[in-house]
Amino acid sequence: MAQKPSIPKGTRDFGQLEMARRNYIFDAIKGVFSLYGFQQIETPAMENIGTLMGKYGEEGDKLLFRIQNSGEKAASAPEKGLRYDLTVPFARYVVQHREEISFPFKRFQIQPVWRADRPQKGRYREFYQCDVDVVGTDSLLCELELIQIVEEVYRRLGIRVCLHINNRKILAGIAEVIGAPDKIVDITVAIDKLDKIGVEAVNDELRERGLSEEQVEKLQPILNLNGSTAEKLTALHSILSNSEIGLKGVGEMETIFDELKIVDCTLDIELDLCLARGLNYYTGAIFEVKALDAQIGSITGGGRYDNLTGIFGLPGVSGVGISFGADRIYDVLTELNLFPAELQSTTRLLFATFGSDELRYALTWANALREQGIAVEVYPEPAKMKKQMGYADDKQIPFVAIVGSNELEQNKVMLKEMSSGNQQLVDLSELVQLLNR
Amino acid sequence: MAQKPSIPKGTRDFGQLEMARRNYIFDAIKGVFSLYGFQQIETPAMENIGTLMGKYGEEGDKLLFRIQNSGEKAASAPEKGLRYDLTVPFARYVVQHREEISFPFKRFQIQPVWRADRPQKGRYREFYQCDVDVVGTDSLLCELELIQIVEEVYRRLGIRVCLHINNRKILAGIAEVIGAPDKIVDITVAIDKLDKIGVEAVNDELRERGLSEEQVEKLQPILNLNGSTAEKLTALHSILSNSEIGLKGVGEMETIFDELKIVDCTLDIELDLCLARGLNYYTGAIFEVKALDAQIGSITGGGRYDNLTGIFGLPGVSGVGISFGADRIYDVLTELNLFPAELQSTTRLLFATFGSDELRYALTWANALREQGIAVEVYPEPAKMKKQMGYADDKQIPFVAIVGSNELEQNKVMLKEMSSGNQQLVDLSELVQLLNR
Repeated sequence: MAQKPSIPKGTRDFGQLEMARRNYIFDAIKGVFSLYGFQQIETPAMENIGTLMGKYGEEGDKLLFRIQNSGEKAASAPEKGLRYDLTVPFARYVVQHREEISFPFKRFQIQPVWRADRPQKGRYREFYQCDVDVVGTDSLLCELELIQIVEEVYRRLGIRVCLHINNRKILAGIAEVIGAPDKIVDITVAIDKLDKIGVEAVNDELRERGLSEEQVEKLQPILNLNGSTAEKLTALHSILSNSEIGLKGVGEMETIFDELKIVDCTLDIELDLCLARGLNYYTGAIFEVKALDAQIGSITGGGRYDNLTGIFGLPGVSGVGISFGADRIYDVLTELNLFPAELQSTTRLLFATFGSDELRYALTWANALREQGIAVEVYPEPAKMKKQMGYADDKQIPFVAIVGSNELEQNKVMLKEMSSGNQQLVDLSELVQLLNR
Repeated sequence: MAQKPSIPKGTRDFGQLEMARRNYIFDAIKGVFSLYGFQQIETPAMENIGTLMGKYGEEGDKLLFRIQNSGEKAASAPEKGLRYDLTVPFARYVVQHREEISFPFKRFQIQPVWRADRPQKGRYREFYQCDVDVVGTDSLLCELELIQIVEEVYRRLGIRVCLHINNRKILAGIAEVIGAPDKIVDITVAIDKLDKIGVEAVNDELRERGLSEEQVEKLQPILNLNGSTAEKLTALHSILSNSEIGLKGVGEMETIFDELKIVDCTLDIELDLCLARGLNYYTGAIFEVKALDAQIGSITGGGRYDNLTGIFGLPGVSGVGISFGADRIYDVLTELNLFPAELQSTTRLLFATFGSDELRYALTWANALREQGIAVEVYPEPAKMKKQMGYADDKQIPFVAIVGSNELEQNKVMLKEMSSGNQQLVDLSELVQLLNR
């Protein structure tokens, strides 16, 4: 036979079990989003190339998949590109539809994105993102709700997590009070290594990164920060007393933590001054969620941005959002064996028959069970019993109803429970009862 | 402000109401698929260009969207293309994964496809297909199940439909007995006009299409066929008595109609000898479903194919499948006003507050309601009441709980039913009761 067909590198087929598991994750997330009034939108896979170009840095531009019509000459510039993330299409959506949208706009979006990255383990050229955002208000209630959503999603999925939170304004304040406002990233990267390399080595690194002796000195109270979140915030109050923006950041964090108490949030939350993702666009809170029982990095992240739609000519729209990493959540659930067993099969029962009369008989039973909302299958041919049983095994169908001439005569079926191998002769009403248990 | 951003022609954004309605359709369809043991798969948006080329005819090749990596030189041939339908990727999937698949393989797939068609009303460059197939058996039970699925899906959606059924083998038999085996399509197209133009004009057209006087004469019994399905099948038995393939087709139809009686199918089904879609690939039953109360053409269609996977080197795998046209179903439900009103909003209640104390108070109530599984929102700022009410109106949220200092003191909220304007002061347990009604 010919060479097996294949799919482009970095892409994946999802079989039935993977799909059931992915849907389990998406359904849990969607259920929580709905509870908070977020509504789903979808945008096209392809955007005009001008919408995408220049939004992801030089490196990002290179990773865009561009689209040609077959009719177009190869030499002519392609006008479209595949969605690289959900954020830029969302910004485009908000600006394009701003007259129809009722702000604050609470939306979620679960769609694939494409990146011409070099494929490697855990990195794909097509993968799903799952984003939730509120735009059109700077109320910190939105940060609170996103944290509550994180708590509830992972409670439902059974994953123990820690949410790290930081604030871009606090980082800016720190850089400001030590007199190095352009060194936010350098400072954060160095601090991040404190646990691993110790305070002396961190100070050396800060000097290497261009901080003066005086600046390093001024940073020491930050490096020595410890205690509870409340204690850290109190200390930051005095450390940042000369920075307006720094104090604003501290105030934002205090409000969020206060509100978390009001709603009895029991999530493990850590004020983490080393958290520095997305400093190009985040302007307030920054979030990152890590699974406590798996070594996999961040499984959810996000933050507050004050100028998402500015790139499309609509300035001054503040928003905050987070993104759930579906692939990583999938890996955590797999590693910790947390997927429910019933995802293996949606079919509860297979009818296996010995002949065409029995097959027709099974059809009427199948019909009656489906009317009760019970998912059943009829093996479509009176094939060898071994083959029919093998099918039930492969599909992990928990029950098989065997129909031979005996059963047909008695108006019953021989019900076999696949896990135990137990068999019993039952009539239709007994069967319904057993399956509804 | 700058020019509004836009999306490529022929593509669409889906807002929250459209998404809720689309999900309503997909959920209804998926629910029925599951009841019959079909399981979902997904394939990548992009396939290797060799997988797609030559599968849709010359015209189809021109309508493929081709993909370039940004890194690739424009002149180099693109290696990938966007999925044009779900059938070819499914065939590719079956061949590629044949060792993991348990046959008969019952799968469904709901994903977008892309065609570089000229955009026009009702025709898009990106649209969803919703396919369900069984491969690996030629049992006519599969045809039966697909018909039952059609019945149940449209029962759930509330759309009255008629299913037209034909059989490629019967058409082949007719062409054979009149001695024009290569004229299947010409004959079918001409017969299709019988109602409109009458038997004489049809005969003229048959002559124009190259049928001899004798052949036209032999076709007259077919043109005069009428009566019930059973009567038509009996007549075909004698008309096709000299055609093995024709009799086989009649036999298949008889079996299907017999089985439909066994399962008490009440769907309006018509044996329609003019139905001739997909004659390039269908080898047995051919289906088409039309809405009775809307002029919109076919909303579901499909058939039996005996060589789906042959193009990828795996011959002899018979299958049968149908495809639900989500866009057209959407249009029918809109035209007939059949979408449930509750799709307008998932949020049941909005808290509108007069100040920050009230806002915090509302948070605890919102929490309590969400714990009961009730979707609620808190307007994130104590904005002007008109603005908060306007938000509830826009989002079609049925209830607003107004919280001012009075309510806060009494530990109650002022509940306003938006449809009637009625207001009443309620405590938390009364509120839960009212919302659960």
